[in-house]
Order: sequence, then C-alpha cells, then structure tokens
Amino acid sequence: MQIRVYYEDTDIGGVVYYVNYLKFIERARSELFFERGLSPIVDGGSFVVRSVRAEYLKSAVFGDLLVVKTEFVEMRAASLTLFQEIFRGDEKLFEATVRLAFVQDGKPARIPQDIALIFK
Amino acid sequence: MQIRVYYEDTDIGGVVYYVNYLKFIERARSELFFERGLSPIVDGGSFVVRSVRAEYLKSAVFGDLLVVKTEFVEMRAASLTLFQEIFRGDEKLFEATVRLAFVQDGKPARIPQDIALIFK
Amino acid sequence: MQIRVYYEDTDIGGVVYYVNYLKFIERARSELFFERGLSPIVDGGSFVVRSVRAEYLKSAVFGDLLVVKTEFVEMRAASLTLFQEIFRGDEKLFEATVRLAFVQDGKPARIPQDIALIFK
Amino acid sequence: MQIRVYYEDTDIGGVVYYVNYLKFIERARSELFFERGLSPIVDGGSFVVRSVRAEYLKSAVFGDLLVVKTEFVEMRAASLTLFQEIFRGDEKLFEATVRLAFVQDGKPARIPQDIALIFK
Repeated sequence: MQIRVYYEDTDIGGVVYYVNYLKFIERARSELFFERGLSPIVDGGSFVVRSVRAEYLKSAVFGDLLVVKTEFVEMRAASLTLFQEIFRGDEKLFEATVRLAFVQDGKPARIPQDIALIFK
Repeated sequence: MQIRVYYEDTDIGGVVYYVNYLKFIERARSELFFERGLSPIVDGGSFVVRSVRAEYLKSAVFGDLLVVKTEFVEMRAASLTLFQEIFRGDEKLFEATVRLAFVQDGKPARIPQDIALIFK
Repeated sequence: MQIRVYYEDTDIGGVVYYVNYLKFIERARSELFFERGLSPIVDGGSFVVRSVRAEYLKSAVFGDLLVVKTEFVEMRAASLTLFQEIFRGDEKLFEATVRLAFVQDGKPARIPQDIALIFK
Repeated sequence: MQIRVYYEDTDIGGVVYYVNYLKFIERARSELFFERGLSPIVDGGSFVVRSVRAEYLKSAVFGDLLVVKTEFVEMRAASLTLFQEIFRGDEKLFEATVRLAFVQDGKPARIPQDIALIFK
C-alpha cells in the first residue's frame, strides 16, 4: 500500500506533521479490510485504538511515496496488537505498536471469527 | 470567536493550507449553536453544505489569531445562506458565501423554528 | 487517480466532511506534477488558490473509491483556472471551479513555460 | 486551555478520530509559547516529536469542551519529555508521554536557555 505525501500532510516545518503518520497507518489497517472486499465496520462493530507507542525515526517530505508494513503481534478475545512501520524505499521513517479493542454498540466485544482470520 | 493557527493548520508553504479556512468557518457556524447551549445536530437533523463560493485574499500564518464574522444572507424553508469572513485584526484574509441545506434522516427537511431564530 | 475514503475523511454525520473534498481535488492537482516526475513546488514557485466555487451534489461515504477528473478552463500569465469533478463510478458527487495564482518568493509571478505545458 | 470538539474532529464512529487527540496536545504545547508572547519556532529552531506513548481511556464526542493539562517530566540538553492529559470535566479521556527533540536547521541542537525556562 503506497501513500503519497501531499500538501495537506505537511506543516510549516516542511515535513509531515507528526500526527499524520498515525493517519497513514490507520489507512493501512482499513485497507486490510477493503482489499478483501470487506469493511472495517461490521454490524455496528469495529476496532478502536486503545494505545499507541510510536517512534519517529526520520521525516517524510512533500511528494514522498511511503509504504506501510503491518505485522500481527497478538490477538486476544476482544483486542488485537499490531506493529506498523512506514518506509520510504529502504529507509524506515516511523514505527508504532498499536493496541486495538473490538467494540460493538459502544461496548467491548469478542472479535468475530472472520475478522480474526484477516489478521492471523 | 477567536481561532489560533497551529502547526496542524499550516503546510509546507509556511501559510495556512487553503482547505483549513473552511474548517475555521465551520467552527464558527457550530459555535453559534454551542454558545446558546444548543447542538448543531438536533433529532437527527443538521445543516449540510450545498455550495461554497470562497475568495482567498491574504494568507494566515502560524501563530495568527483569527476572527470569524458570520452574517445572515437569506433563509428559505429548507436552506440557509451565510456570508462568512476571516479577519486578522483589521485585515480581511478570506470570505465565503455558504449555502446550507437542512437535512433530517438523510432527506431535505424544513428548518425547525428554534434553529431559524438563531440566524434571523 | 483513485482516492479511498478513510475514517479520517468522515465525520459524525457518517459522510465525508465537506472540507475534505477540497483535499481530494488538491491531491489530483499535485498528482498532475508527480506523475510526470515533477514537483508542484519549483524554485520557490508554486500555485496558490485564489478562489473556489464548489457544488456539493451527493455525499461520499466510508470506503468509497472516488475518482477526480481535472479539466483545463483558462490560463493567463500568472493564473490558471481548472474545473474539477469527483465521481463515484458514474455518479458525480462534487464539482468545483478553482482559480490558482502562481506565486514565487511570496509574489505573483509568470507561470513557467514547462508548467504551463502540463495544463494546456 | 479549552478545546471544543467540532465536526472536523469526529469520524463516522461518532467520536473523536484517534489521531486528533494528538493535535489537541500539540495545540497545548504551542500555546505554552503563544501565551508568553513567544513562538514555538525561534531562529529556525523548534521541537520535533521523537516518541509518543498514548493511552486512550474514554472517547470525546461532538461539542465536548476539553482541557489539556501538560506536566514537565524531564529535560536534557537537546530533548524534553512531557506528560499530557486530556480531560472532560473530571473525567480523564487520554494521556500521553511525549518526547521532543530540539532541532535547529535540521540538526539536533541544545535547547536555548529561555525556552528551557518555559518548561522547568
């Protein structure tokens, strides 16, 4: 999954605004569903972020083509941990460990079997 | 209503990204409700934007304190037209005429009387 | 140029936040440069938006794949007018006429010949 | 420092998009400078984020008035660690430990004395 850095992603510092790397990794998480013809929102259930541990290694700049790599770390009944990295070619710019909880109708819920299979 | 320009609002050009002026005027529209203890979303009804005519006169920069001025132009049964300007001190930076439609449960609907009174 | 609608693009109304359609058409303008191996920022010169006339026809929703179509309207020495539409399949969701000025080192400047050729 | 939750901050889930809490705490960091009549960018030097450890405790919703509380954790020659929390009334919604590096002309640099004093 390639992500182009546009004006909207940069700030006055000339590089990508620190918050937007988290948008990029969220796009990659959603795309795992979309590329299978599924939606990240099923029957009122979806993943919400519970914690993020992010390291900013190098800056992305306007026009860069970035790649997000998503690795499975762990799954429990109602939560999922992923490790996501952003690369520009061979250079790693960013990495984050993201813990997600599955929530249905506003309450923590068991991850449905077909969704669990996407990640395992 | 004062709006501070933060990193998130700027882009690599060192000024406010053109799209974000439209965020600022939307905040001002919502604040018309909030400052009266109301919400812009009532019983599944809310305004949606139908058209925008925007002129960019001068650029806002990081750290600026901006003021949004909202004037009533016209109201019909199901739509509302506003004229909104953004100032930095005496300088006008931006102006837009925004036409909004009232939508309830996904369909155009009559603007409720109490909401009409906010604007008239 | 295809654009996927992610969480970041939606709002509480369940559709794309009205401001973000303007992000989508900006991506398409920048991509005209990138796909030719060029950058929209050359020697301190770039286009800035002077006016936008936008019509919101239908709403895009989470997961949609959108296409932006950009048509040349007019070019003068220092400004450029484009007509941009956003489609979901055959349905037109949005259209805008955007007038851009070429600015170099903060001042209006003649559009360089090689950039003019991209649009003509 | 109070922050209102507007349409732009929410997503289709009806709550604040997870990325935007990081915008809110950045506004608070910048405001520490602005409220003293200073700018977060001085002589080409500014703080950039090196790492974030964020916990999402409860969700903010449209119209909420949030307060960001920023606490000093540690300062070294060229880096600074802050602990930032977001509250809605008495309820804590979010907390993050943010490590920032001071960068001047693209390179790590000693934090200037007057800036160090803001945080100590």
